[in-house]
Amino acid sequence: MKWELEPLGYLASCYQEKFAIPRQPGLAPSARASLKLLAPYNQAAMVDGLEAFSHLWLTFLFHQNLEQGWKPKVRPPRLGGNKKIGVFASRSTFRPNGLGLSVVRLESIDTRQGVTLELSGIDLVEGTPVVDIKPYLPWVDAVPAARADWAPAAPEDVEVSFSNQAEEKLREDSQGDYLRQLIREVLQQNPRPAYQKIDPERDYGVRLAGHNVKFRYLNEQHLQVIAL
Amino acid sequence: MKWELEPLGYLASCYQEKFAIPRQPGLAPSARASLKLLAPYNQAAMVDGLEAFSHLWLTFLFHQNLEQGWKPKVRPPRLGGNKKIGVFASRSTFRPNGLGLSVVRLESIDTRQGVTLELSGIDLVEGTPVVDIKPYLPWVDAVPAARADWAPAAPEDVEVSFSNQAEEKLREDSQGDYLRQLIREVLQQNPRPAYQKIDPERDYGVRLAGHNVKFRYLNEQHLQVIAL
Repeated sequence: MKWELEPLGYLASCYQEKFAIPRQPGLAPSARASLKLLAPYNQAAMVDGLEAFSHLWLTFLFHQNLEQGWKPKVRPPRLGGNKKIGVFASRSTFRPNGLGLSVVRLESIDTRQGVTLELSGIDLVEGTPVVDIKPYLPWVDAVPAARADWAPAAPEDVEVSFSNQAEEKLREDSQGDYLRQLIREVLQQNPRPAYQKIDPERDYGVRLAGHNVKFRYLNEQHLQVIAL
Repeated sequence: MKWELEPLGYLASCYQEKFAIPRQPGLAPSARASLKLLAPYNQAAMVDGLEAFSHLWLTFLFHQNLEQGWKPKVRPPRLGGNKKIGVFASRSTFRPNGLGLSVVRLESIDTRQGVTLELSGIDLVEGTPVVDIKPYLPWVDAVPAARADWAPAAPEDVEVSFSNQAEEKLREDSQGDYLRQLIREVLQQNPRPAYQKIDPERDYGVRLAGHNVKFRYLNEQHLQVIAL
């Protein structure tokens, strides 16, 4: 048996590239995306009643990785990037069938012209094809006592500071307070690949909500935004 | 864009038909299934480390419904079967792309011959094609405070009793205690379609774990197993 999926729509995301996207949803609550549904899925009737739910499941395709396929074992960042585990024991984006799953917050629903869902707490890159939308049912989907031996809690945050130059830019921006918060939430996830040593001379860059955010690591636990 | 899915394997389930399957996972904790992975997914390496997790996400296809397609609105049993809501505001099994999602308990992993996962708390019918397996991460996936206005908790159970004849059969069966528990968990979900009036003369039947379970409604809140 084979089964063909057709995207319901493609995300317009504050994450314009994969680098620095938190590795799970909810870690950066300020991260926003819009999902405009395509015909024939863009009928207001199809989302009637959805406003009853604060959270949704998105099933999507890891579209940037599909061509590269999968390997039986992966090195999850969570284990420092040097221990291998089975791909089905991971949430790796390189996996058979290439499907992803994220619980996201539903901010609002706009049915004035087709259907657009405004979402937050997302961990999905620009252009992600969404193939299913389901309401989150806490009495079914929330299993707080589930055991996850080597990934029992969110990774520890690193400290994020802003250079004077970056601060000035934020103060001038009408969206500055939002941007500062978003940048902090995203970068405190410690986006540096685990295998890279700290190099205080090295500049990292990430495109975030229309800005080129440049940052440096001051040490293992502290990075500074130097420009945007 | 189109994307083709290939099943990782097909479930061998205690639920031999769709009728009476609880409408969400976890409601009948005793419900068991085996998932034997197919080549090339049946490598022990691919599930290495999976034992660290008590629960898994299965993404699967509602294979019995795929040909019938979907409609923009559905009548969820939860709303008595007479109020319509949008298909994306429901967990309906008739939906665009035909994808299902269930959190299930991982009981054991057998890698002696290929890979077989023993699962419980399932809500999936025999032969369900599974297209993804992911570990459940409670600090990501559990959102106990999520709002679900008209489906905030599990539906109320009905009472289940056993006729003398059914009890006798259970006592003779080496799996009788397990079966009694399974039947109780499944039938207390009140499998009668909401639009059907109670008829104490009407026999219902369901194939469950190799048994033909016959039952009748004594009243709205009480059904009796009459034979198996």
